[in-house]
Amino acid sequence: MLFHVRMNVNLPMTMPAEQAAQLKADEKALAARLQHEGKWRHLWRIAGQYANISVFDVASVDELHTLLTSLPLFPYMQIEVMPLCRHPSSVRDNDL
Amino acid sequence: MLFHVRMNVNLPMTMPAEQAAQLKADEKALAARLQHEGKWRHLWRIAGQYANISVFDVASVDELHTLLTSLPLFPYMQIEVMPLCRHPSSVRDNDL
Amino acid sequence: MLFHVRMNVNLPMTMPAEQAAQLKADEKALAARLQHEGKWRHLWRIAGQYANISVFDVASVDELHTLLTSLPLFPYMQIEVMPLCRHPSSVRDNDL
Amino acid sequence: MLFHVRMNVNLPMTMPAEQAAQLKADEKALAARLQHEGKWRHLWRIAGQYANISVFDVASVDELHTLLTSLPLFPYMQIEVMPLCRHPSSVRDNDL
Amino acid sequence: MLFHVRMNVNLPMTMPAEQAAQLKADEKALAARLQHEGKWRHLWRIAGQYANISVFDVASVDELHTLLTSLPLFPYMQIEVMPLCRHPSSVRDNDL
Amino acid sequence: MLFHVRMNVNLPMTMPAEQAAQLKADEKALAARLQHEGKWRHLWRIAGQYANISVFDVASVDELHTLLTSLPLFPYMQIEVMPLCRHPSSVRDNDL
Amino acid sequence: MLFHVRMNVNLPMTMPAEQAAQLKADEKALAARLQHEGKWRHLWRIAGQYANISVFDVASVDELHTLLTSLPLFPYMQIEVMPLCRHPSSVRDNDL
Amino acid sequence: MLFHVRMNVNLPMTMPAEQAAQLKADEKALAARLQHEGKWRHLWRIAGQYANISVFDVASVDELHTLLTSLPLFPYMQIEVMPLCRHPSSVRDNDL
Amino acid sequence: MLFHVRMNVNLPMTMPAEQAAQLKADEKALAARLQHEGKWRHLWRIAGQYANISVFDVASVDELHTLLTSLPLFPYMQIEVMPLCRHPSSVRDNDL
Amino acid sequence: MLFHVRMNVNLPMTMPAEQAAQLKADEKALAARLQHEGKWRHLWRIAGQYANISVFDVASVDELHTLLTSLPLFPYMQIEVMPLCRHPSSVRDNDL
Repeated sequence: MLFHVRMNVNLPMTMPAEQAAQLKADEKALAARLQHEGKWRHLWRIAGQYANISVFDVASVDELHTLLTSLPLFPYMQIEVMPLCRHPSSVRDNDL
Repeated sequence: MLFHVRMNVNLPMTMPAEQAAQLKADEKALAARLQHEGKWRHLWRIAGQYANISVFDVASVDELHTLLTSLPLFPYMQIEVMPLCRHPSSVRDNDL
Repeated sequence: MLFHVRMNVNLPMTMPAEQAAQLKADEKALAARLQHEGKWRHLWRIAGQYANISVFDVASVDELHTLLTSLPLFPYMQIEVMPLCRHPSSVRDNDL
Repeated sequence: MLFHVRMNVNLPMTMPAEQAAQLKADEKALAARLQHEGKWRHLWRIAGQYANISVFDVASVDELHTLLTSLPLFPYMQIEVMPLCRHPSSVRDNDL
Repeated sequence: MLFHVRMNVNLPMTMPAEQAAQLKADEKALAARLQHEGKWRHLWRIAGQYANISVFDVASVDELHTLLTSLPLFPYMQIEVMPLCRHPSSVRDNDL
Repeated sequence: MLFHVRMNVNLPMTMPAEQAAQLKADEKALAARLQHEGKWRHLWRIAGQYANISVFDVASVDELHTLLTSLPLFPYMQIEVMPLCRHPSSVRDNDL
Repeated sequence: MLFHVRMNVNLPMTMPAEQAAQLKADEKALAARLQHEGKWRHLWRIAGQYANISVFDVASVDELHTLLTSLPLFPYMQIEVMPLCRHPSSVRDNDL
Repeated sequence: MLFHVRMNVNLPMTMPAEQAAQLKADEKALAARLQHEGKWRHLWRIAGQYANISVFDVASVDELHTLLTSLPLFPYMQIEVMPLCRHPSSVRDNDL
Repeated sequence: MLFHVRMNVNLPMTMPAEQAAQLKADEKALAARLQHEGKWRHLWRIAGQYANISVFDVASVDELHTLLTSLPLFPYMQIEVMPLCRHPSSVRDNDL
Repeated sequence: MLFHVRMNVNLPMTMPAEQAAQLKADEKALAARLQHEGKWRHLWRIAGQYANISVFDVASVDELHTLLTSLPLFPYMQIEVMPLCRHPSSVRDNDL
């Protein structure tokens, strides 16, 4: 089941550089794992913004929420979720 | 080069059913061709709306505009375009 | 799996009263059936508006979209969907 | 009498973890009591957000306001209230 | 129990003058009756707009909805409802 | 002459409790005086919010501005003013 | 007493040219009279829009409303009113 | 050439009273000079807000920008500019 | 003097194709002339929309308004104007 | 390939003047280089705001994002990107 997720990141200016770097490294590691597991299906940067467009593939809304709130950057993000479904004109097998 | 596109469709209530059906069939045929050519990379329905989220893969902004305005439903759609680029945390080869 | 749905209805002023009455009767019959089946968990009127707040309980986003687009009033509604999940402070068994 | 309430929580980044934990525990305890008393009829988490959708069942607007402002997290929440009434198509006895 | 109501009126340009006059006369008669009954506590025109700010005093949300939807102009109005309660600094007996 | 005023209050989290209590007490005292003088005609709490809806009866816009800026909480409020006039359907003598 | 008024005009596309010309001529004549009487203090066109920014000088909100609703184009305008008062830094005698 | 300017002022709560007073005195002095020079044609307070509506009369957009950025309160203001031109229905000689 | 202009075009669905074609041809001819005269400095299509971003170079706001309202598509456009001035970091001679 | 970019700058009030001056000098130097290289095609100040309108000419969205995020002021800017393409009515050779 697919969900379209937009994440806007706002790290406070006062956060020490070291802490920010650690958070980003942890985020990157978890993102890689979730992508390899197939949960995080797509991940793109929005040009000119510290923000991304993602597509998650999860078994339930609860799983989606658990994944999103487990992200190290979650406390610093504004997140919008939009449920997706198969488009009748889609011919791609994996856009389910 | 990837672009995130949201299309909201508003067919006028007064359009004859036959004309609407023809427009949708033409739209579907062109969408299929563009997907097979790899130009229209993703196409999802937004749940509960006559709207879609798409990702296009084109060589230029002009090509994107030409594709979008060639859609049979273009005169009846409100379209928003957002340029995407590779996310540093992406591990997928085809999310370029 | 629960989804919060807001439906705003806009019947065109020019619709004949008979057609409007038929649409509403069909809508009511289907709403009753979906409620009895447990798919349409809650249905409330927003005070002062021709609009409702609903909670659907479905197995997938695709099922939700199929239900919503099968509503006789769908062509005349603006719909917003928001995925819900269990709240850690909820003590109700059926707010799953 | 039912009211649809959306609560968005914003704890300041500078709040000590201990204080935040205490606030949340107090909030949870009160939420449990109000649910058991039947005042707080529904409580769902909005996916991806530190926010909830709730339905309160109270005897008056004043009672609703008293309940909401008694929540330990009230000073940190943005709250929107929407009065609900019975929907003519509802078949559920307790969606009154 | 008090509710703050804003009503914006939009009569279609194509409505015959006679029909509009009849609607407004009916609306005025009902408004007068509801004011005399104490249900419609306040009624003010917003300067420069075909819109009003009202305060209703009703026993329940359902009664409020029934009153509002019984207004002859209801099909032509956009209505926003906001529940009010007694302000701790109010010294007026009838601002309950 | 009547003006509809909405005041949203935002006291900074860092304000000492004593200072906040003093401000609120001063505000309450002035509000009481202005109500007794007939300048502050109505004062209601918006349910669930640290905000109010008020109606002022003043001789001029300048008097209104002077009253509003004299409120102890003025530096912490966002204020919106909307001029009201008599509604042709009003039957109340004091809704002038 | 001064009020800042923004008027956006939307004549329906289907209005016969003759009727539109008559309406505009009537509007212009009334605007001239109100300016000469000192009621309509300022009148500017917003560049690129069929809209104006005006300042009215009236004895009361009721007078303002009466003036605005007497404009021949009133049924085709969206109007926003904002009460103005003397600025402490103003040195102009007639910006009262 | 006339420009409609709205300025919203937001002095930080933490600014020492003395510094704020000095800024406001400097702003007032400059505003007086610009008004006497005819550059700042109108200056009104928006009722209930720490904001003003102004009309500037300048020879160019660059001159306008230079004037606005020279204001002592500029770093604390949000400014919106709207170009004005003569209205065909204006009869005032100085509303050029 | 430069002005940033965004034009959104909305031709009514009911306009005969011939009339639309004539309007567009007239618009194109005038746009070409104004570009050659140096008044219309830049003209770009916004991708995916029947809208453009333009930069005009005019001697006054009145000239800008006269140019915009002389466009054959003006009655069908929504226009937003934003005054530009030289940026201190610009190194281009003609970005004046 | 052209992109329309709007940048709004918000330097924190607490930033030392020296640091701000250094950031702006670095920004200016890089802006000059990118303009000379033809990447940053246009750069205008929005009147009355610490904001600019820019047009970038880049080979790809990734190049655009790399340029924007390399700006010294990037962490303090809110950026909106809009892809542009050639307008059929443009007669300028370099508005490609």
